[in-house]
Amino acid sequence: MKKRIAVYPGSFDPVTNGHIDIIRRACTFFDEVIVAVLANRSKTPIFTVEERLELLRQSIKGIKGARVDSFSGLLVEYMRKNDIRVAVRGLRAVSDLEYEFQLAHTNRTLNPDMETIFLMPGVNYVYLTSSTVREVASHGSMLSTYVPVPVAKALRRKFGGAQ
Amino acid sequence: MKKRIAVYPGSFDPVTNGHIDIIRRACTFFDEVIVAVLANRSKTPIFTVEERLELLRQSIKGIKGARVDSFSGLLVEYMRKNDIRVAVRGLRAVSDLEYEFQLAHTNRTLNPDMETIFLMPGVNYVYLTSSTVREVASHGSMLSTYVPVPVAKALRRKFGGAQ
Amino acid sequence: MKKRIAVYPGSFDPVTNGHIDIIRRACTFFDEVIVAVLANRSKTPIFTVEERLELLRQSIKGIKGARVDSFSGLLVEYMRKNDIRVAVRGLRAVSDLEYEFQLAHTNRTLNPDMETIFLMPGVNYVYLTSSTVREVASHGSMLSTYVPVPVAKALRRKFGGAQ
Amino acid sequence: MKKRIAVYPGSFDPVTNGHIDIIRRACTFFDEVIVAVLANRSKTPIFTVEERLELLRQSIKGIKGARVDSFSGLLVEYMRKNDIRVAVRGLRAVSDLEYEFQLAHTNRTLNPDMETIFLMPGVNYVYLTSSTVREVASHGSMLSTYVPVPVAKALRRKFGGAQ
Amino acid sequence: MKKRIAVYPGSFDPVTNGHIDIIRRACTFFDEVIVAVLANRSKTPIFTVEERLELLRQSIKGIKGARVDSFSGLLVEYMRKNDIRVAVRGLRAVSDLEYEFQLAHTNRTLNPDMETIFLMPGVNYVYLTSSTVREVASHGSMLSTYVPVPVAKALRRKFGGAQ
Amino acid sequence: MKKRIAVYPGSFDPVTNGHIDIIRRACTFFDEVIVAVLANRSKTPIFTVEERLELLRQSIKGIKGARVDSFSGLLVEYMRKNDIRVAVRGLRAVSDLEYEFQLAHTNRTLNPDMETIFLMPGVNYVYLTSSTVREVASHGSMLSTYVPVPVAKALRRKFGGAQ
Repeated sequence: MKKRIAVYPGSFDPVTNGHIDIIRRACTFFDEVIVAVLANRSKTPIFTVEERLELLRQSIKGIKGARVDSFSGLLVEYMRKNDIRVAVRGLRAVSDLEYEFQLAHTNRTLNPDMETIFLMPGVNYVYLTSSTVREVASHGSMLSTYVPVPVAKALRRKFGGAQ
Repeated sequence: MKKRIAVYPGSFDPVTNGHIDIIRRACTFFDEVIVAVLANRSKTPIFTVEERLELLRQSIKGIKGARVDSFSGLLVEYMRKNDIRVAVRGLRAVSDLEYEFQLAHTNRTLNPDMETIFLMPGVNYVYLTSSTVREVASHGSMLSTYVPVPVAKALRRKFGGAQ
Repeated sequence: MKKRIAVYPGSFDPVTNGHIDIIRRACTFFDEVIVAVLANRSKTPIFTVEERLELLRQSIKGIKGARVDSFSGLLVEYMRKNDIRVAVRGLRAVSDLEYEFQLAHTNRTLNPDMETIFLMPGVNYVYLTSSTVREVASHGSMLSTYVPVPVAKALRRKFGGAQ
Repeated sequence: MKKRIAVYPGSFDPVTNGHIDIIRRACTFFDEVIVAVLANRSKTPIFTVEERLELLRQSIKGIKGARVDSFSGLLVEYMRKNDIRVAVRGLRAVSDLEYEFQLAHTNRTLNPDMETIFLMPGVNYVYLTSSTVREVASHGSMLSTYVPVPVAKALRRKFGGAQ
Repeated sequence: MKKRIAVYPGSFDPVTNGHIDIIRRACTFFDEVIVAVLANRSKTPIFTVEERLELLRQSIKGIKGARVDSFSGLLVEYMRKNDIRVAVRGLRAVSDLEYEFQLAHTNRTLNPDMETIFLMPGVNYVYLTSSTVREVASHGSMLSTYVPVPVAKALRRKFGGAQ
Repeated sequence: MKKRIAVYPGSFDPVTNGHIDIIRRACTFFDEVIVAVLANRSKTPIFTVEERLELLRQSIKGIKGARVDSFSGLLVEYMRKNDIRVAVRGLRAVSDLEYEFQLAHTNRTLNPDMETIFLMPGVNYVYLTSSTVREVASHGSMLSTYVPVPVAKALRRKFGGAQ
């Protein structure tokens, strides 16, 4: 049987325990899950793509089958070049759904051979977003139960803060 | 590598082309997809479980890896007995999402080893439900582009109607 | 120019001021708006179709262009027979939207020549439904600011109640 | 200062840990929270009103300020008779919101002096409903982490089941 | 009978086949539909207002009753000046609804004589937005089945790209 | 009994009658409601924090128990310093809900002793936002029924406009 590969694309600025939860779940279905950081030119991120890749690498240690990569441009192009047919996305809430379906439908239009599958994160991560993590950290506080230890450290180096 | 099996549970009263679309998509990820008809005691279906199984069998002919079964009771019990770890569900709209997440979370609570994955049907099936098909057929009309041919025939036998 | 006719279908069990508001608005666009009571066999209504027609007749007095009718079966059949191409529906909330879009899409599939247009009721009617009116009346109370006077009277005759 | 009293109305068929969570939270704001079981004639409950009251009594032991009662008819009437001005409701999801706002608006219309306040349950209870608990129990299984111990026992007596 | 005129306001940056679909539908109800490009100062559009008008003109050729215009400031002012009482809007999804209702309610408050009617686009356009079209084109790819031919050409001139 | 204090945080740029409605309602439950203007560095407001505080002060005159303050940084820090345990938020629509629940859950994570309660504004304010008020005012028009008189005056001074 052929090796099954999926990509889990995102900004991961920074990776949260919600993302890690999705990666773990995806790795039970796929032989390999490539966590692919989108190098989006137009936004002003907290961490550079290189920093995000490094934090991801440290955070996914011990998850069998997970590895990291980055890409720019359209996801379908990245998938075509790497011969990947499945993209994984976490789905938390109603507001996610419509955006995610627009995205998945666009990708399906651009490449009918690709498929998006949606996973439900653990209930603890239902209200968790990277932007909340950033906002809280920027005020010197920390959602430490919601980010991997390397991310908590990196946020403290960047913003300071006691907790 | 081990054979990968998923279950696609539902009432399928009757199966629609939206269901068939999800089955096709799931069969590109899994070696085997068991379309499992829920024998729900409390509802008054249009077709018996046996009729629904037969219509499904005729409708999935030619989809490699798909086969049909039925079950009663809790899905997690069916999955445990058959050593299946993944359930597949189609997700069309916001109203689906909350019901599906309640269901998936309940199943995850009853058996943390099982996982639910969600697929987006083709855009043509975004407003399609079995109950719409039943309602229209009961008035002697037919959504013939939205059901497999064997289902259209069975509905006509049951309700009559010209189209 | 040809006379423009629209149908406003519904159960109207009973008609509320929210419905009247939609009728008034539709009558500013159409030369004639037929308020069509659906004679649904499967439900147990508070008022018979005849009573609902009579209450509608009394409630739309003075709205130029509005008249009442009833139908059974599929709306598209009623529209075909009466050579009506446009259906009007009120849209209050998110939960309405998905149901209404399923309905409109089904009708469009059955007859591509028909169109559904959606109107937003006045803000006072944003939380108003016939079922709320029935529920409150069945306990001997009355949402008198939300139903036409003839409906309030009929509900009192049916259920009693002081207010 | 006057004693502050709120009512927390519901079916509680049966009470879940999600309800208990809301009761605990409400008791930090109010001197007294009356958990009021609605004796709804039209549904076929699992537990009688008396059983539900008894299960509630056992489940809220140790929550300072909480006590139980039952009522029939409209909530606003119950509140008027008992001189209560505030109703408390838990809000989990989008589908809740529109129903709850219809209800709250209806109550406000019937009695402008009453107010509804909404609380967010703990994240663990975000997908939990009484009907899920009933459904699972009726198949001889149990969501034991989601119901108080007396409820788990009562469900087992009613439906059997090992877990 | 008086000529019936509606305005279909929007950014149209660029016009998509979803917009064209709405224009076609609106033109079956109204003698004249003015597609009005909002000249919004604060955004950085892909196409200038003049370019958008020209692309619209080319894209609506052959749709009887449709013509183009532009406006700045408030829609109600534009409608008042041009003696138009009806605005048309497409409604795709739940996220649209709340924004559109805020807009329609604001306009109704500013001018109670104006009305907004909502149309459902064809099912193929349910996930289509101008911003998706822009995003895809900016990466040198094209959703060519979703934009009129003149728009596809203009996007290619602007961004390059093979497909 | 101890004095009960709640905070009603927000941008209030500017305060609307919808906010005033929530303040009035909250003041019937709490001995003191502190309307706390968030001094958010990253946005470009219409009114300075000082202007917003002054407009609030003028607008809440006569509401017993209401007073104004401002804060920067995280709400939980402000509440900790001022020994406030309850935050009040208005909830209008589905799109509000998910954002508000993320916020409330984040605050609860940062400080499990704080609670957020949600109130439903009067039906007239269901579609009202500060950003709509700003947008309309910036075009020289006014939603005068939706803002307190001092706000209407201040907007006119800022933007001009006749109405």
